[in-house]
Amino acid sequence: MTYHILNGELLPAATAAIGLNDLALLRGYGVFDFFSVHRGRPVFLEDHLQRFQRSAALYELSLPVSVEALREQIFKLIRACDMQEGGISLILTGGYAEDGFHADTPPNLLILSRPPVPRFADKQRVETPIKLITHRFVRELPEAKGLNYARALRSQAAMKAAGAGEILYTDGQRVLETYRSNVFLVMPSGKLCTAGSDVLQGITRKYVLQLATEMGMETETGDIPLSHLAKAKEVFLTGSGKGVFPVS
Amino acid sequence: MTYHILNGELLPAATAAIGLNDLALLRGYGVFDFFSVHRGRPVFLEDHLQRFQRSAALYELSLPVSVEALREQIFKLIRACDMQEGGISLILTGGYAEDGFHADTPPNLLILSRPPVPRFADKQRVETPIKLITHRFVRELPEAKGLNYARALRSQAAMKAAGAGEILYTDGQRVLETYRSNVFLVMPSGKLCTAGSDVLQGITRKYVLQLATEMGMETETGDIPLSHLAKAKEVFLTGSGKGVFPVS
Repeated sequence: MTYHILNGELLPAATAAIGLNDLALLRGYGVFDFFSVHRGRPVFLEDHLQRFQRSAALYELSLPVSVEALREQIFKLIRACDMQEGGISLILTGGYAEDGFHADTPPNLLILSRPPVPRFADKQRVETPIKLITHRFVRELPEAKGLNYARALRSQAAMKAAGAGEILYTDGQRVLETYRSNVFLVMPSGKLCTAGSDVLQGITRKYVLQLATEMGMETETGDIPLSHLAKAKEVFLTGSGKGVFPVS
Repeated sequence: MTYHILNGELLPAATAAIGLNDLALLRGYGVFDFFSVHRGRPVFLEDHLQRFQRSAALYELSLPVSVEALREQIFKLIRACDMQEGGISLILTGGYAEDGFHADTPPNLLILSRPPVPRFADKQRVETPIKLITHRFVRELPEAKGLNYARALRSQAAMKAAGAGEILYTDGQRVLETYRSNVFLVMPSGKLCTAGSDVLQGITRKYVLQLATEMGMETETGDIPLSHLAKAKEVFLTGSGKGVFPVS
């Protein structure tokens, strides 16, 4: 059976529910994070817990429990669901507001179990790269994982029509990020480039950069002109859900 | 007793709840509207129903019921709550998504009863104008009432510190709107000005413009340079919750 945890309480996923006055529901006000569970263990948990706290701070929200308690609840959920492969979403909302705006309670903390994100075998992945469409859009507070994905969800019809798998955001000059991945370019010189600012500081991004350096690749973290997209030898996306994903 | 309606079902407000996989909660994906109830009657209901439908269309969401059925549910809620003075929030979410992203169900429709917004007697209102602070910010899709109020909610500490009642958004050149009101300026010539584009097409705004014209005032709907703020004789805000509100 699948469970979620709401404010510390383990609840069957099918019936777990939250009050209608929650500020995430009413005002899109909250932050989240997501990590994979592989062989029963959360992947890069400490990185995700750190980022979740940073996102909360940027949104002026306080965790209602200690990080230790949050960590324990995560392991409790993994055990309850007997999860070997899957994912966990953390959500911290603005709390309940009877007037629909000013919180009357501390934030609500949701720990949601997720099915595994479909992953292809390495060979098949490289052979089935995804298409991108571009949109001019800079997220409001790109360093934080806020709940505002309206732009991405509103564009699903456009993505489908274009046969695209993700939307690449640009401010008109620079390659930024997709709505749920960081973007890497391998330039003809062999240098690996990714955006430095106005993007989410992804966890997989961090480890890809680290690994590339260890492998002796030259890396650059900074502004990427849009024109580099056409010049790049390879383009790939990274994210905690999908891992590393090639772009056609 | 207070009730809400969730997908057509009348539920006691204290226990009404929505599943944790709703896309408004998970991704801030949804639209809303709000109108006052005065002497038991919804104020400008048809305008709000029209705008709610327009917001939904801009977000690529379909109302799961006919407008006639929605109207009936609103009246049913007002009767059940025996509401004389108050407000109603309409919320249409992206629906439930087991994978946290792609909707598996039609949108969820919430009709929430709200307590009356505090209104002062006319004299007291004019004598207690509110302060504004300004932020450089243009809403993503200003014509629609989307759920993304994270910016406004995140700024409550800054507003409190400044003793401000609202945040005025500007793109650096123009006076736009506050996070929940339209802005009007009365210029030294007596002309009434309000922003034409990149703002919500407010219902109270519409009736204030209509009334001003009927009273023989000159009105202008278009770009308002920021410098006009200092020159204006009077500044006031309009919104369905607060009505008309003076700015100091």
